Order: sequence, then structure tokens, then C-alpha cells
Amino acid sequence: MIDYEAFYATNTRSAERSLIRELLKVSRTGKAMISFAGGFPDPATFPVAELKEVTQDVLATGAALALQYGPTEGDPNLRDELVKWMAKDGITTRRDNILVTTSSQQALDLVGKVFLDPGDVVVVELPSYLGGLQAFRAYGAEMVGVIQDDDGIDTNLLADALLRLRRQRRRPKFLYAVPDFQNPSGITWTRQRRERLLVLAREFECLVVEDNPYRELRFSGTAPPPIFALDGEARTIYLSTFSKTLAPGLRIGWIAGPEPVIAQCVTVKQAMDLCSPSFTQAIAAALLRRGDLLRRLPDTVTLYGRKREVMLEALEREMPAGVTWTRPEGGLFLWVRLPDGMDTGAMLREAVEEGVMYVPGQPFHADGGGRNAMRLNFSYPSESEIRDGIARLARLVTRHLPAPVHTIHRRGTSVSD
Amino acid sequence: MIDYEAFYATNTRSAERSLIRELLKVSRTGKAMISFAGGFPDPATFPVAELKEVTQDVLATGAALALQYGPTEGDPNLRDELVKWMAKDGITTRRDNILVTTSSQQALDLVGKVFLDPGDVVVVELPSYLGGLQAFRAYGAEMVGVIQDDDGIDTNLLADALLRLRRQRRRPKFLYAVPDFQNPSGITWTRQRRERLLVLAREFECLVVEDNPYRELRFSGTAPPPIFALDGEARTIYLSTFSKTLAPGLRIGWIAGPEPVIAQCVTVKQAMDLCSPSFTQAIAAALLRRGDLLRRLPDTVTLYGRKREVMLEALEREMPAGVTWTRPEGGLFLWVRLPDGMDTGAMLREAVEEGVMYVPGQPFHADGGGRNAMRLNFSYPSESEIRDGIARLARLVTRHLPAPVHTIHRRGTSVSD
Repeated sequence: MIDYEAFYATNTRSAERSLIRELLKVSRTGKAMISFAGGFPDPATFPVAELKEVTQDVLATGAALALQYGPTEGDPNLRDELVKWMAKDGITTRRDNILVTTSSQQALDLVGKVFLDPGDVVVVELPSYLGGLQAFRAYGAEMVGVIQDDDGIDTNLLADALLRLRRQRRRPKFLYAVPDFQNPSGITWTRQRRERLLVLAREFECLVVEDNPYRELRFSGTAPPPIFALDGEARTIYLSTFSKTLAPGLRIGWIAGPEPVIAQCVTVKQAMDLCSPSFTQAIAAALLRRGDLLRRLPDTVTLYGRKREVMLEALEREMPAGVTWTRPEGGLFLWVRLPDGMDTGAMLREAVEEGVMYVPGQPFHADGGGRNAMRLNFSYPSESEIRDGIARLARLVTRHLPAPVHTIHRRGTSVSD
Repeated sequence: MIDYEAFYATNTRSAERSLIRELLKVSRTGKAMISFAGGFPDPATFPVAELKEVTQDVLATGAALALQYGPTEGDPNLRDELVKWMAKDGITTRRDNILVTTSSQQALDLVGKVFLDPGDVVVVELPSYLGGLQAFRAYGAEMVGVIQDDDGIDTNLLADALLRLRRQRRRPKFLYAVPDFQNPSGITWTRQRRERLLVLAREFECLVVEDNPYRELRFSGTAPPPIFALDGEARTIYLSTFSKTLAPGLRIGWIAGPEPVIAQCVTVKQAMDLCSPSFTQAIAAALLRRGDLLRRLPDTVTLYGRKREVMLEALEREMPAGVTWTRPEGGLFLWVRLPDGMDTGAMLREAVEEGVMYVPGQPFHADGGGRNAMRLNFSYPSESEIRDGIARLARLVTRHLPAPVHTIHRRGTSVSD
């Protein structure tokens, strides 16, 4: 028997399987399970009728190109459509500033590969997107976490962290931000925090990687500009995706950024997959040209906004005192905190037995914290599943609540006995 | 102005853009250029009518799954079909030994990421597939090349190289082999060479990575078994693709190998893109289930076999004495050698001006050799383009032929004056 592990590379030898992915595998087996674990869109939002038309069009009129190898940069028509798509967010850019990727997870991997040496520092939020942490760790980078509050990353603490790193002569390659309806917390950064981040990035000479997959899914409030749009000195690399506005199964993501960075990403992507699928890119370009995605967006936003309401009401109704949660203005997730000392990781197996799944908070925390937190997805389950699932979860949480502290004074013994 | 290069990672900072891809970009501008440079299939082989039916079916009956995130391992239906597809080559394997990738280039990247640390050795053929070299170099690995003859890699020289490395206490992580109609040379390894490779891999405790994208495209002769099928001890990792039997624009590749290695590849792929596109996988699975790919294969083989003949005849007719070439039994490429001292890289710009493109031999050579060689693709150009292009190329080669050596004896002066 060959000892395969002896052959594995240092950086990826210790890679841990994403708990989410492992849970998702369970969730595909068709058990009567209510899952708040994934980040799945509701299939009702998929533009199936439009896709039927568009795929026939593409195959009837453009098969020779759509089925062939394409440029590594991506389909030129799609990149032109992406320029227009991002313009709705106040982003002014050009085709040569855009690289199409096979999902924004590939964009994260590519950014990691282009920038990160083993031991390099990336500054992330506490909590931060698990897939980002995994992508960057796969290149041996070290994550330094900065706490988030309801307005986004705490930029005072960020300044402290950057100063501390400077004293250690460590300059982060980039600051990784998910400023709109963050995965996992659902929190949106204020404009002020975005501007301060850019000031600090400039002062400490770091790049900024803005990961923005949920921006279009706003239920309420007004949208601050993307960091990328506020950045006057081409310091920001912007990642986005159609996984939530079209469908994840097409795996269309992209990177927008300074032309030299995009050119370097193209060079590195060549050795990764030559190019993303021409077929799915041609389909996405056609849907964008027809305006299908923008036209369907209000329905998607309404659907997810209603599901968020249902989940918030259920939490309010079911959860015991001491449990708190965020009230996101958009996106797919909210974030629940149980009383200190509770451990959502340890509770997960029992939850699965009860027929409800979530993602424990700890893996989202670069500092190992977040044990009392959990991420809940509200886009995929139905409204009745949300009600039932939160009820199941609340019963479980209630059962695990720490007993009220009875300080028993016994003569001669310490309270900690 | 930000100095972006100062931020780049060591391994990829010096990545060179693939000359092929850069040339392909030129070739998309629509110039009246005859290109032997790409590795494009003929679009006439794309199953467009079948794809129209199958995409409608998939969207009508399976949209909720085909447009959703899927398991990182790949669509289970597709993996079951891949078991059957590989069985035609004498490969016995199971679903859990297979991981679907977004192209076999991604499979190469994934293998590099899973196995290679900076300074690790990979043994490759001279010449070898450029995309493999690039993928492995992106992880800082060093390529050690072993010369190929008409029967495949020279296994005596391979044994010498492995001994030399052992004396330096360097054990290659794997031997990288493209045994069927190799890209770039078109050479097929004999069964004996395949068996000897496995013996040496065992003796020197290396893994084997078999990259086999062209196997189905055999025009003549009999097929030796894949190395993977000859391997009795699960030492081989097998890569393949539908880029040549379906269409490259779907970017469907896969890895088959020992279950623990596949599991590790899955873990690492999670951080790279979560999963390959569900939509294209569902389409490929449906085409395979219907038998479309096997049914269309004879026509594709006939088409490429005829084009190969046209190219061989044109070379015979047009090329000056001293030029030699391979006569591949299948695949997409043949390999031309000009007289020693000629430099196909230096000639390329002039070739482009003459309206003909090829890929110079040097980038395929891990040892910097191959300057007098070129790779010619015969699958994409039409028969008349092949005739005209080879004529253009032959005129160019003839112009650049070294003048016959006239040894002039002059009293008192050296011949080298």
C-alpha cells in the first residue's frame, strides 16, 4: 500500500474539508432535513425559460465559438456586458480591467496564487468568509483577524492591528473585505468604514480585495458605494459573481482591477485552466444583453426579503433569552450568537439528528473564536421550513442553555470544585 | 502609481504568458492567417444538434439541480458515465475514484497543488506538454527532462536520471507522461515502455501522472493499454477530458486515481472553485448516456486522419531536404525538426507576417532545447489551409536554411574567419 500522504505538498497537506461542503453532501441525500447550512439560492429564482431560449440561440448562431476554447481573459462580449453591469453600482471600468473566472471562489484562489507566499499576512474580518480563508491558507498565508461591529470592520482596531504588524516588520499583502451583507454575518459596512479602510490601506501600503457576491440582493436601506468605486488610486481588486443573480451552476465569476494586476491574473490563470467555459460565458452574455438578470432581480429580492422576515419572526418567537442575531439588509445569511460558553460545533451532530443544519461560527474566525455563533441561510429553505427549522433549533438551544449560575458556598471548598 | 509587482508571489511572479495563448489571441482577430499553432478541434466535430436536444432536456427536467451548486467531486451521474467511458480502454474503476474538473488543465493545476512543494522534482519527457510544465512550475517545482524516441520516453535514460537524482537524495514526486499521441510530438509509447515506466516508478518510489487527452483519436495501429490500466498497485493518477471528443467550450475534464488521492484532490478543489459547473456536467452526462459521443467518434477520427494525411503529403511535397517530422497514429499534432542550428522561435514573427503560425519547440523542452523544432496542429485548419500553410512554411524554412558549408582554404587564415 502506497503512503500517499508522504507525497502531499506542505501547503495543502493539512487542508480541511469544508464543513459546509460535507454537510451539503448530506443534504443532497434527500433526508427530511431542514438546512440553513448552505448558501444555495432558491431554484425558483433560476431563469429557466430564458435559459432555454438563450441556449438555443447560442447553439444556433454561435456554436463554433461558444463550444471552442476562448481567450483566458474571458468572452469579450461578456466582459463588455460586465462593464455595464458594474456601472449600476457606480463602478467605472473597461473591458481590459476584467477577467472572467469559473466562480468567484476561483477568483479568490487566483488572487491567492498571484499574491501570496507562505508566511504572508492577509487581514480579514472576524468573522470572515470561510472560502476566502481556505483559498488564502492554501498558499501558506497567515490570517490576521479584526473584529467587526454592526457598521462593518472596526477600523480603529484595524489601525491598531496594522501598526502592530508594522512594528513586527510585517506588511499584509492585502486587506480582505466582504462589505455588503457579509458571509457569514450579514453585516454591511457603512460608507465611512469603507473610506477609512482605503485610507489605512494607503497608509500601510496594502492592496484591498473586495469580495462582493451579494450586492444586488438588497431588501431595505440604501447602498453605500462599493469600496472599488470609492478607491481613487487603483488599490482595490473587486470580485463578483452571477451565482446569486443568475444561477451557481454556471459558475460565472469575475475579477475587476488595475490592468497590470488583471494581466498577471490572466497569465496565472492560463496554467490553471486555459480559460473558463466558453459555453456558459456566451449564455451569460446573452442573458445580460437581453436584460433578463436585471428584470428578474426585483422578484428575487422580494422573495429573499420575505424569507428573511420569516426567519427573523421565528427567531423572535422561538429563541430563549440570551440569544441574539443580526438583521441583514440583504444577502443570504444571518448570524446568531448564543450565550458565552455554548459551543455550536459540539451541538451540530445533535442538530442533524433533530433534522436541522447550520454552520458553526468557529471556522469563520481566523482567531479560533466564534464557538458560540452560527450562520443561518434563509434563501434556500421554504418559509414553512424556516419556521419549523428555527423551532427545532430553538428547542435544541434551550436544552443546551447553561444552567443559571448558582454560586454555592460551602465551607472549606472553592466555588470551582 | 502602485508598484503591483512588489506584491506578487514568488512562484508566479515570473510566470510567462503561454506563447500559444498569445498567438491564439492574434488568431481570433480574423486575419487571413493559417494557424497550426492552437490545439483547437474542428468545430465540425461539435455535436450541436445533440446539444440542442440535451440542453432543453436538462433545463426541462433537471434545472433545479443542473443550475445549483453541486458536489465538489462532480455530478454523480457524470462520474458513473465516466466509469463506463474509461472501461472501453480497459480501465476498471469506480465512481469514488473519479473527480470531475473544469478541463484537464485544471486537473494538472490540482495535481500540482496537491503534490508539489517549491524545489520538488517532476520528471517529464523531452519534449513535454507545455501546459503541464506551466502548471507544475507555478508551484515552484523543477522539471527534469528525459529524451523521447519513436517508442516514447527512453526508459534507459529515465533509469539513469532517476539514479542520478537518487544520488542527490532527490526523489521525484511523480513522473509525468503523455503516452498517447503526445502533445507536442504526436508520439505514442509502446506497451513495453509503459510497463517499464511502472517498474521504475515502483523502484524509485514515485507516483505516475498519466495525461491522456487524445486517446480516442486513433487513426491507425493498435492501442496499447493506458498506463493506468497496466498499474497493479494504484501508483498512477489518470487525467482525461472531453475537449476533443465533445467540445472544449464545456471544459469537462477529470482525474481518476486511488481513493485517498481523489479525496485529497476534492479537499483542495473545494478552496479552488467549490465545484465545476453543474450545468455543463449535466449536459455531458446526458450526451454520454445517449451514446452520442461514442457514436460521433468514428467521423471525428476519419476527419482528423484525413487532415493528418493532407499535412504529411504537403510536408513531403514542400519541405526541403534536412527537415524531418513525426507520423502520429492519432491526436492533433505532429512535430517537425529543422536542421540543427535553425531557430523556430526567431522565425516565428516572420512566419506570422507570411500568414502562417506554429508553436516553436523550445517552450516544450524542460532543458531549454528544441530550438530547431516546431509543433503543427492539423485538426483545426481546413485541408486547403493545410496545403497552403505548409507551402508558406516550407518557403520560409527554405529561405532560412543554413547555407551549405563551403570550407574555404585560404593561406594563412583560419576557416572560421
